[in-house]
Amino acid sequence: MDKTGKVTTGFSMSLDGFIAGPNEDFQYLFAWMMSGDTDYAIKIGDREQKLKIAPESVEMFENAINTTGALVAGRRLYELTHGWGGHHPITAPVVVVTHRPAPEWVEEEWPVTFVTDGLESAIEQAKVIAGEKNVSIASATIAQQCLNAGLLDEIHIDLVPFLLGDGVRLFEHLKIAPITLGNPQVSIGTGVTHLTYCVKK
Amino acid sequence: MDKTGKVTTGFSMSLDGFIAGPNEDFQYLFAWMMSGDTDYAIKIGDREQKLKIAPESVEMFENAINTTGALVAGRRLYELTHGWGGHHPITAPVVVVTHRPAPEWVEEEWPVTFVTDGLESAIEQAKVIAGEKNVSIASATIAQQCLNAGLLDEIHIDLVPFLLGDGVRLFEHLKIAPITLGNPQVSIGTGVTHLTYCVKK
Repeated sequence: MDKTGKVTTGFSMSLDGFIAGPNEDFQYLFAWMMSGDTDYAIKIGDREQKLKIAPESVEMFENAINTTGALVAGRRLYELTHGWGGHHPITAPVVVVTHRPAPEWVEEEWPVTFVTDGLESAIEQAKVIAGEKNVSIASATIAQQCLNAGLLDEIHIDLVPFLLGDGVRLFEHLKIAPITLGNPQVSIGTGVTHLTYCVKK
Repeated sequence: MDKTGKVTTGFSMSLDGFIAGPNEDFQYLFAWMMSGDTDYAIKIGDREQKLKIAPESVEMFENAINTTGALVAGRRLYELTHGWGGHHPITAPVVVVTHRPAPEWVEEEWPVTFVTDGLESAIEQAKVIAGEKNVSIASATIAQQCLNAGLLDEIHIDLVPFLLGDGVRLFEHLKIAPITLGNPQVSIGTGVTHLTYCVKK
């Protein structure tokens, strides 16, 4: 086993490539999390969120929780989610890529690091925190920057059966295309197809 | 079994949504057709094209050939492929949606119909030709128009593990989004994931 983990990213994406719908609507993108027959609870901050997903999706979540040692987020996502209330569903510490100091509402015991000297430094610090586990990129803009910088090892897509027509695309601003990926690992859930691609270098 | 078949469409698409690369490059999109371990020949006009694909992809091609009763193409694609030399690989007759009469180079015995009174008429005529079999839309612009007109029953995607960054997107100009699809049938080839979605109405 490698001493350091992979740099990975994962998003729910519509068949037409959107990871947020018009007006930042996630209704369709996250519908699969209530479409299965198996109860599964994730923790966001102090709050428990009950899901109904396929057994294959439970396995996917459990795997993400077990293998992720640190998350990297942009400032915008971190503020939008209010720092996941101090506890991201994946349960790993968060590294925030930012130009400014931590917001005042961040509580002292929250496992979060604010990195102000750039993307590569943030990834390096996340790798140190993650140890042998993986670093998972939570923000699309950061994932794009990592792809362009050759820092991304793996892309996980929860492909959902909707055409949203508009919104935010995961794959934009690629400066080094074409990028070759490996054959995906495929796992079929209910209302979702889980696809995991390695990024070839 | 229904008396009339489905209206379906199918494309090789990169993970970032492109069905043609920059400068109409198809090198990456069609790479899976030479990536497998099983010999398979398709006929384009008088020419035999030898492929090397996975057994799952052979099954997909055979199924398309057996179930497709007519193809619908736009004028541009029809001219670009020189009418597939009179024989499309799927072996079905072609209906061309156009505003002009047939080009002079079309040979008399080629199974092709030029429809000048609009999309719906072309689909209707293709359905008559197809009988109990399916009508398959070969052009992305026509597929988009069919989606917008509520005429499309099924979308088949050969999802390939590349990020092309630029080119022609399959899903654009959608006027009736969001569109809900069914859970896909998934078949895993070599260098390709075959996904077949029904369009919910």
